[in-house]
Amino acid sequence: MPRRTDSRSKMIHAAAELFRQRGYHATTVSDVVRESGAPRGSTYFHFPGGKAELAREAIARAGDEVEEMTGEAARHADDPASLVRAMAQILTSRLERSGYQSGCAIATMVLELAPRDEAFSAGFDSVFARWRAALVTRFEALGIAPGRAAALADLTISAFEGAAVLSRAARSTDPFTTTTEALISAIGHDTASPPAAPSSPARRAATGRTSRARG
Amino acid sequence: MPRRTDSRSKMIHAAAELFRQRGYHATTVSDVVRESGAPRGSTYFHFPGGKAELAREAIARAGDEVEEMTGEAARHADDPASLVRAMAQILTSRLERSGYQSGCAIATMVLELAPRDEAFSAGFDSVFARWRAALVTRFEALGIAPGRAAALADLTISAFEGAAVLSRAARSTDPFTTTTEALISAIGHDTASPPAAPSSPARRAATGRTSRARG
Repeated sequence: MPRRTDSRSKMIHAAAELFRQRGYHATTVSDVVRESGAPRGSTYFHFPGGKAELAREAIARAGDEVEEMTGEAARHADDPASLVRAMAQILTSRLERSGYQSGCAIATMVLELAPRDEAFSAGFDSVFARWRAALVTRFEALGIAPGRAAALADLTISAFEGAAVLSRAARSTDPFTTTTEALISAIGHDTASPPAAPSSPARRAATGRTSRARG
Repeated sequence: MPRRTDSRSKMIHAAAELFRQRGYHATTVSDVVRESGAPRGSTYFHFPGGKAELAREAIARAGDEVEEMTGEAARHADDPASLVRAMAQILTSRLERSGYQSGCAIATMVLELAPRDEAFSAGFDSVFARWRAALVTRFEALGIAPGRAAALADLTISAFEGAAVLSRAARSTDPFTTTTEALISAIGHDTASPPAAPSSPARRAATGRTSRARG
């Protein structure tokens, strides 16, 4: 008996990669079948909704992915600057390994489809909301004041999304690196001079480590 | 006699708007003809290279556009923060007016096509290089140290590009506004206290990248 869940999972993975690299419109179900190595006949058994259903699955998976990526970066980070640098390293290695084709999992689809396609738009927004929430949690744990953490999370996500666009255009990680260093410098100011608020062990620890993180 | 230059210009304008809103793959020459109101018969007279030629013209126009937009914002700006805020206002009103469909002129095409399509990729990079150079000139004129101006230009462009993605997904200018305010706060630190030695290859940003990336 064919291992149906394997085929299904492989097809979602292949679809996600193609949507990421070239977008929704340039990806056909045939491309997905070919890339995944899944048996052609099973496509509409696994995905009766066709390409749109594959896209919904890929978008949901992108939400898991940004949370995992943030968690992975956080394991090696003991201050906000090193968290941002670790995420940037994960994202730039992916860009380099893919020959500058693999940026954000959903950005290409967002720009092609949002907000005209309402079925997808809520999914797109939910991916960014999950990334924002994961970042806010980590930033706060690393000593950023709650009010600032949300603003810095938005700046970080926007900067990474845009840097991926610039790096694909430049076929180089330089725009990503310059953007990340400027971002870290901005965050450094935040941790170096926190707003007047009750001091906490986390805040003091983060503040004390800032200079090392910049070096 | 038909006014040929008018038809040509209208078609480039319509093509640029469609590529911006939905990307390269979902735009057909018929869409461009319909949107522009140009006579159908003249399409291949004006654009023997078809859709690809329309895209090249739209990309070249995007370079003019970012320079004009930066110049327009600079006319009302007497410090780096107000320059950034004025650019953000231009970009967010365009997003709002278009029902969150009209973000960056080239970002959708970059993510669909770069760097696989070499003919377009150099054009994409050149648009960002022109925006970067225009921003560096204005930042320096407004008192940012030369080494920092290039880094802040990259952060600003990345942040705006990414914020447009987030705002289209959210159908709201909120992510753009939060990102802009965090960016302005970062730039405020720069103007308030000149930084120590640059920690990134900032100087390269405005000059060396384009030729290397094209090579």
